[in-house]
Amino acid sequence: MLLNKKISVFSFIKQISFDISVILFYAILVATADQYGVLAQISVPLGVSAIIGTALSLLLAFRTAQAYERWWEARIVWGAIVNDSRTLIRQVKQFVTDNPDGKKSVESFAYRQIIWCYALGESLRRLPFSQKVQQYLTEQNIVEINIPNGILNRHSIELSQLQIGDYKQVQLDSTLSRLCDAMGKCERIKNTIFPKSYSLLVHFLIYVFATLLPFGLDDKYYLVEIFVTALIPIIFIAIERTAIILQDPFENVPTDTPVTTIATTIEINIKELIGDKNLPTQEAPTSFFVM
Amino acid sequence: MLLNKKISVFSFIKQISFDISVILFYAILVATADQYGVLAQISVPLGVSAIIGTALSLLLAFRTAQAYERWWEARIVWGAIVNDSRTLIRQVKQFVTDNPDGKKSVESFAYRQIIWCYALGESLRRLPFSQKVQQYLTEQNIVEINIPNGILNRHSIELSQLQIGDYKQVQLDSTLSRLCDAMGKCERIKNTIFPKSYSLLVHFLIYVFATLLPFGLDDKYYLVEIFVTALIPIIFIAIERTAIILQDPFENVPTDTPVTTIATTIEINIKELIGDKNLPTQEAPTSFFVM
Amino acid sequence: MLLNKKISVFSFIKQISFDISVILFYAILVATADQYGVLAQISVPLGVSAIIGTALSLLLAFRTAQAYERWWEARIVWGAIVNDSRTLIRQVKQFVTDNPDGKKSVESFAYRQIIWCYALGESLRRLPFSQKVQQYLTEQNIVEINIPNGILNRHSIELSQLQIGDYKQVQLDSTLSRLCDAMGKCERIKNTIFPKSYSLLVHFLIYVFATLLPFGLDDKYYLVEIFVTALIPIIFIAIERTAIILQDPFENVPTDTPVTTIATTIEINIKELIGDKNLPTQEAPTSFFVM
Amino acid sequence: MLLNKKISVFSFIKQISFDISVILFYAILVATADQYGVLAQISVPLGVSAIIGTALSLLLAFRTAQAYERWWEARIVWGAIVNDSRTLIRQVKQFVTDNPDGKKSVESFAYRQIIWCYALGESLRRLPFSQKVQQYLTEQNIVEINIPNGILNRHSIELSQLQIGDYKQVQLDSTLSRLCDAMGKCERIKNTIFPKSYSLLVHFLIYVFATLLPFGLDDKYYLVEIFVTALIPIIFIAIERTAIILQDPFENVPTDTPVTTIATTIEINIKELIGDKNLPTQEAPTSFFVM
Amino acid sequence: MLLNKKISVFSFIKQISFDISVILFYAILVATADQYGVLAQISVPLGVSAIIGTALSLLLAFRTAQAYERWWEARIVWGAIVNDSRTLIRQVKQFVTDNPDGKKSVESFAYRQIIWCYALGESLRRLPFSQKVQQYLTEQNIVEINIPNGILNRHSIELSQLQIGDYKQVQLDSTLSRLCDAMGKCERIKNTIFPKSYSLLVHFLIYVFATLLPFGLDDKYYLVEIFVTALIPIIFIAIERTAIILQDPFENVPTDTPVTTIATTIEINIKELIGDKNLPTQEAPTSFFVM
Repeated sequence: MLLNKKISVFSFIKQISFDISVILFYAILVATADQYGVLAQISVPLGVSAIIGTALSLLLAFRTAQAYERWWEARIVWGAIVNDSRTLIRQVKQFVTDNPDGKKSVESFAYRQIIWCYALGESLRRLPFSQKVQQYLTEQNIVEINIPNGILNRHSIELSQLQIGDYKQVQLDSTLSRLCDAMGKCERIKNTIFPKSYSLLVHFLIYVFATLLPFGLDDKYYLVEIFVTALIPIIFIAIERTAIILQDPFENVPTDTPVTTIATTIEINIKELIGDKNLPTQEAPTSFFVM
Repeated sequence: MLLNKKISVFSFIKQISFDISVILFYAILVATADQYGVLAQISVPLGVSAIIGTALSLLLAFRTAQAYERWWEARIVWGAIVNDSRTLIRQVKQFVTDNPDGKKSVESFAYRQIIWCYALGESLRRLPFSQKVQQYLTEQNIVEINIPNGILNRHSIELSQLQIGDYKQVQLDSTLSRLCDAMGKCERIKNTIFPKSYSLLVHFLIYVFATLLPFGLDDKYYLVEIFVTALIPIIFIAIERTAIILQDPFENVPTDTPVTTIATTIEINIKELIGDKNLPTQEAPTSFFVM
Repeated sequence: MLLNKKISVFSFIKQISFDISVILFYAILVATADQYGVLAQISVPLGVSAIIGTALSLLLAFRTAQAYERWWEARIVWGAIVNDSRTLIRQVKQFVTDNPDGKKSVESFAYRQIIWCYALGESLRRLPFSQKVQQYLTEQNIVEINIPNGILNRHSIELSQLQIGDYKQVQLDSTLSRLCDAMGKCERIKNTIFPKSYSLLVHFLIYVFATLLPFGLDDKYYLVEIFVTALIPIIFIAIERTAIILQDPFENVPTDTPVTTIATTIEINIKELIGDKNLPTQEAPTSFFVM
Repeated sequence: MLLNKKISVFSFIKQISFDISVILFYAILVATADQYGVLAQISVPLGVSAIIGTALSLLLAFRTAQAYERWWEARIVWGAIVNDSRTLIRQVKQFVTDNPDGKKSVESFAYRQIIWCYALGESLRRLPFSQKVQQYLTEQNIVEINIPNGILNRHSIELSQLQIGDYKQVQLDSTLSRLCDAMGKCERIKNTIFPKSYSLLVHFLIYVFATLLPFGLDDKYYLVEIFVTALIPIIFIAIERTAIILQDPFENVPTDTPVTTIATTIEINIKELIGDKNLPTQEAPTSFFVM
Repeated sequence: MLLNKKISVFSFIKQISFDISVILFYAILVATADQYGVLAQISVPLGVSAIIGTALSLLLAFRTAQAYERWWEARIVWGAIVNDSRTLIRQVKQFVTDNPDGKKSVESFAYRQIIWCYALGESLRRLPFSQKVQQYLTEQNIVEINIPNGILNRHSIELSQLQIGDYKQVQLDSTLSRLCDAMGKCERIKNTIFPKSYSLLVHFLIYVFATLLPFGLDDKYYLVEIFVTALIPIIFIAIERTAIILQDPFENVPTDTPVTTIATTIEINIKELIGDKNLPTQEAPTSFFVM
């Protein structure tokens, strides 16, 4: 997640540098040809570009809104993971008998849940598991292809062994189901490519617009013409890129949903709940973003 | 689902080739008439076309957004099918006693659920059932008109025979109800035609726009006039087609929700859960899409 | 629901014929006056019409989107009715003991649920009940003012007499509550008039636009002027009408939610579930729509 | 709720008469000054007004959509109140034993629920309670500050005294919680002022637009200029007012959610359910609206 | 929450005074240069600015809508807190036995819940806890990092000690889970910065627009040119700021969600429910807002 600090504009421009170059090159080409009288008599009224511009602006605005919704849904899902992680441990603690055995169960659920959060985040980002997670997996011999799902199953197995009565077992199982849903939603957002035909069309339209625009402007000032005919398409490219950045929130980049930070918050909350004093420190952001 | 690879633009253009031809033909016709002085004095200000263009752009943008929502809903439903399939088997495993009989029940539910996912996908796409599904149906003598519904009923019948107590039975039944809901939602999306009067109107408007546009442009360059007067309506047609592609996600075409791939994922997850080592392989996409 | 066949454009035009006449009459009037030099010097720049046109297009686009959402919600509710009807009978079958008495209960619930679906659809369309429904009501002596609600209550009374234990009873009751919700949602959509002040304003704005438009066009060609000044307002009227058609989906017209077809599907599904071979036939659509 | 009858346009205009006067006065002022050559040389291109007009139209369109959503939510909540009122009484009837004591309990819940609906509607509209409600409150000695909440609590107290077993009690309690939610949602809509800074900005923008518009039109015809420069801002004011009317649905005005009519429907449904023949009559609307 | 009283426009303008200064300075600079013939020949057609203006208006309209949704969601969450607080205490009262011990439990839950509401509000606003809250925390020895979460856990611990049977315990636990969810949703809204790249882009676009605009206007009147070229960008800045104000509703400013007022309402409702006559007084707003 980007913070309210100076962010790296440079890295953003680098992402669209190819498009900027192509558009600039074309603008210079047409303006130069104009200077030498080639093409000069071809004119496409600015009104035509305006019609395309309106259609394009609308598509881009909706596309940005849809990307925003994906981003916001990802954040909502991780918010739900916070809530249900707290709820799970609170419920286990409430339901088991308050004796050494019960305490051991609570701790077992608590540490497993903490690891699950880190593992889910790392697996969404396609990262190798961190040492903390790796160690737990080895100790517990969890080798499933889908690791977070494997961890949830361990919850389920231990749950079936608790002596808490059918009713409380089912209530805990419902919380597990919600966590399973949250995991599935993250996978859905991660694995579903934004409709390709749609995004290609928008991209293509920007170039159509860029192609026609110079013929609607007059040619008095070489540099002004280049500036204006390149500027607007580049703005559209920038809007499009902003949407692309938002729509994929688990790519291990600064604009990600900050799953590591959220997992650390969950770790702190859960450890407090079970009275473990060994709290992790939320790392102070040293940069313009938190992960 | 289209992948982030080079997709077949050609197949897209083929889909709108009829409209392209009509629009091009009309543009050539009017431009040629202009050349010979016929129609030349009729002029409709570009501003009029712009007003229609704005209305049309808005309708198309909303229509695309609605199509996108259908597509996204289809994906959400299949995401829920993933979650509830995992949850169902996890719950059965947790609720039945851990003995040979229980194990047999778990396997029975597991294989039935796997088949249900494939059968639902194939039935939505109006395909003949694959061999794997066909074999299961024959073995289990499932002959209902609505096959996926028939399979769910087998779940229900077996559930009523498990000795797990009312409470756990009802919890499992709730999971079945959610699967039943998911199935019904897919059928709704499949069977509900996007409002015909609405889509006809948008299509008609594009042609009205195409008809008026040439009279708002000047006639100096024959080829430029043809190009511009044909280009914008074709762009609108392309936007419309993009929406149409999105709105029907179970048509056995490359832009479908990838139900086969999702069913394979479910098969892997469920088999891991019950310790079946005979995992299917997720076929590597050999093309620009996965089904 | 309109099918993907040739629909009756004529019936659509008939619905807006009054507005078309008024707008055409006005366009002819102004154009004729122009010919004779009356009004000719009054001019309102096309830009002014464009500003109104933009505001109007936006309102119409949102209004269409809101109408679409009502239409889609109506379809979603009937989709939920399909799901919950199946679920209800599946649950009854699962919960009662498998003996002659239990079988009789299942059948009683099944036939009552089938009748409920037909009765709800017919009552939303303000139709007299079909013979099938009428006969059942007479037999069972159901005379409430709100017939579908009365049928649900019979479900509830019979439910209280089943010997299935509190827990299963409550689970079935939850399904009844969802059916009760679906019924209430249909009534809400049926009984809530789309905000009158809002729809009047939009209608009024179209006429304001129609009034100003001719003064923004030049008067060279009598027929062209009439054509253009009438065309755009008529397009707006057509968009408005399309929204009106969508927003009321239970009016016993071709664009309705196909509640009879859906009820027949439910009848087939339920009868299959209880082993009744006497399935109704889904009538093949003989026209451009299904009801 | 306004009906599909001739509604009082006059009352609408009265609501915006102040703004109409100010805008008209300004339009006349500028047009007159123009006539005498003052200001005549100042000109602001119509394109500038068009840019503001586009931004303004968009804000107004979204604002109207948001107001519509509040209105629709209010209607949805009252639809849910219908459903849950029916469900509550149906459940009580189903759960209590069918003997004189049980019957008395059902009636007690039924009449209390009817009163709750009327009381909630009247309290949202800040009306003194109707005689029917007042009498009940006095009889039952309900004196809480929040009367509807007080009535719900009486439900809760009587519920804790029913001998129906934990499970059915909790099921009824869930229905009460949903009614409590519905009540809270109405209070939220009632008590939350539409964001003031947002609505002020839109209002201010309309006046900015009105101020600039006359300088973009030419001055040939005194009356035409006044007409046009006043018309468009007044249209924007009318759109804004339409939104304001929608956004506050519990103000005891004709455009309200028809809570009294809905409460009467509930009374009829509930009385039929318990066999009370003394049904209220739904008053035939004598005017263009129902309350 | 701002009230329907005269709000401080001055404080709003102060918030955007920096942007106003920069834009004004630039407008004066360009106009002055024009007067002296510098830059005078550079012209960028107003149509180009209009295209950017349309794109910008759309982005701003969507951004405002998204900000509005955050604001509305925050209000919905606090509405849910009202409902669930009432429900929690109603349920406890209904479920415990009506004797001195039970009464003590009810009071214990009631006061804890009241404190939780205040504590959550104050903690979202990053305020030091008020005396009332501080005193309770000290008495009860609640020292967690996340105080509201700590209070909820006390609910949970006391709940596990009530003798009310599994079923009622789980029902109460579900209410606790909903409160936990509400708390997590508030934290999500508080901690999630509106996508930085998105908001920067919009801000940047306003300045691009401001830069180009003066070159599209003619230079006859020095003051008029300055006025117009500064006015429109400032309007865009004002729209943007309105969105920013809405999107962060827990910043201890007048436009906040009125969490203190809502907490007081909850205190009144809960105290009435348990018969505590010592009601707090809802402070009459002395200003243009309530907190």
